[in-house]
Amino acid sequence: MKALIIGGCGFIGSHIVDALLSRGHAVRVLDRKPEQFRAALADVDYRFGDFKDKMALIESIMGVDIIIHSASTTFPGTANLDPKADIVDNLIGAIGILDTMVQLKVGRILFLSSGGTVYGTPDRIPISEDHPLRPIGSYGIVKVAIEQYLEMYRLLHDVSPVVIRASNPYGPRQAHSGVQGVVSTFLKRIHAGLPIEIWGDGGVVRDYLYVTDLAAICAVAAESKIVGVFNAGSGEGHSLNEIIETIRRVTGKTIKIEYKPSRPVDVPRSVLQVSRAEATFAWRCTISLEEGISESWKWLNEQPA
Amino acid sequence: MKALIIGGCGFIGSHIVDALLSRGHAVRVLDRKPEQFRAALADVDYRFGDFKDKMALIESIMGVDIIIHSASTTFPGTANLDPKADIVDNLIGAIGILDTMVQLKVGRILFLSSGGTVYGTPDRIPISEDHPLRPIGSYGIVKVAIEQYLEMYRLLHDVSPVVIRASNPYGPRQAHSGVQGVVSTFLKRIHAGLPIEIWGDGGVVRDYLYVTDLAAICAVAAESKIVGVFNAGSGEGHSLNEIIETIRRVTGKTIKIEYKPSRPVDVPRSVLQVSRAEATFAWRCTISLEEGISESWKWLNEQPA
Repeated sequence: MKALIIGGCGFIGSHIVDALLSRGHAVRVLDRKPEQFRAALADVDYRFGDFKDKMALIESIMGVDIIIHSASTTFPGTANLDPKADIVDNLIGAIGILDTMVQLKVGRILFLSSGGTVYGTPDRIPISEDHPLRPIGSYGIVKVAIEQYLEMYRLLHDVSPVVIRASNPYGPRQAHSGVQGVVSTFLKRIHAGLPIEIWGDGGVVRDYLYVTDLAAICAVAAESKIVGVFNAGSGEGHSLNEIIETIRRVTGKTIKIEYKPSRPVDVPRSVLQVSRAEATFAWRCTISLEEGISESWKWLNEQPA
Repeated sequence: MKALIIGGCGFIGSHIVDALLSRGHAVRVLDRKPEQFRAALADVDYRFGDFKDKMALIESIMGVDIIIHSASTTFPGTANLDPKADIVDNLIGAIGILDTMVQLKVGRILFLSSGGTVYGTPDRIPISEDHPLRPIGSYGIVKVAIEQYLEMYRLLHDVSPVVIRASNPYGPRQAHSGVQGVVSTFLKRIHAGLPIEIWGDGGVVRDYLYVTDLAAICAVAAESKIVGVFNAGSGEGHSLNEIIETIRRVTGKTIKIEYKPSRPVDVPRSVLQVSRAEATFAWRCTISLEEGISESWKWLNEQPA
């Protein structure tokens, strides 16, 4: 098949590109700029532009079998600073993708949603896909609205959507600007000999998923015709303190920690139930937290200073 | 107290104005145009402008104790025709209201949400407030997102929101352009000697709430400091066929019906559980369907041709 990966030069998108190429698919990418951490791949048809630009979208979508939408202009930690911009970029941007799909009669879309934010504070752990959606930050609110518009376009316009609600992905090529992912942020600061910051007491629990495991389920779901919503996580919860302990073990470094007040928009505990994805796609998470952190550290040490 | 009713010249808003005035409150209205069906009220401070116009919003919000947001540029039956416009007008418009409240330190807001659309196809009847939110049309998707942003602004900025999820309101001063409310649309066409149109077999069940009952709960909730989400409905379900039968009885008219194919975005059955609002606000629906339709018919016959 021929896939367009919107956001294919980003952290998750670039791993989805790898997964699709390794499975023999033709890959086109629409992104605003080239990959940050590696050279362009010879087998990829890159289109540089903004997914909010209608003509860029038309030219990118024309001729593909499926769209994988993995782009977001915001992160969970930044979106609340300007909800209007979050809505304009990401929600209206997604409507633009859907409208263009309908126009060009491309029916299939995989949307990368956020299992870490759409549920809000969970009633029960692990969180199944049927758990109420009660996001408490703009990033999750917009993801929920996009999921609901996907369903509306399915009913009204025969769009065929599959939604992957990823837990907390981490791994090589995650940016380390401090806003995307604690694992890469911690590793980068430790690598630079800087202290790490923790909001709260380090007891916050998350479900960390190694990015190649996430890319694998996206590739399998994209190849299928299955419609629906699927959690993708490790199914295991780890506290920030456990993450730090694992990093200490893997890196052998002494870690300086600065504790900051906890934030009201941080959910205390989030672990996804992943049995639906496992049963439907014969998929499972294969990389343990220790292996994943070890690979991430190795990758970081290979980067030019 | 001094209240700003955004959309106070509209169908529901104008009845909220009446309810607040009768309870002795000072009332300011922000709306795009004067009321359609009656002259300006002497006791109301009208401000004509768009709630998406920042300066109109600032001047309207300055000095009030509470904002009652009852404006929408779309209806459930129109919003899907242009989801982008729905989002820009109503979702980004709501963020503009919230941001202005934070700037001007006006903390209290009552938001008129939509119990008929936010739940989607219900798992159980009657629908309680804890039912999952799975809207299948743009109108409901935007209402859900606004509710979630209200909660986010409560957590981050101490906004104090109360949300009223109204069922299907009807009554005097409902426009009869064919997009807002079946009762008024049916009555208007019958009054004009025209056939009425039904999408599907007339078995679709809704919870119809007479508009003065809705205005009453809004007034009581606005006077309180209570934060939360409340269904407001009659608690009773009536099919379209029952509505037509009641209209036939009340008006004594022969009704011609044209049946059209059912629409995929019509939920088959929606009736709200209203025990939370009844217990919290000592409120209940007081006008029966027959009385309400009778009052609506009387009002319609008093209008100039």
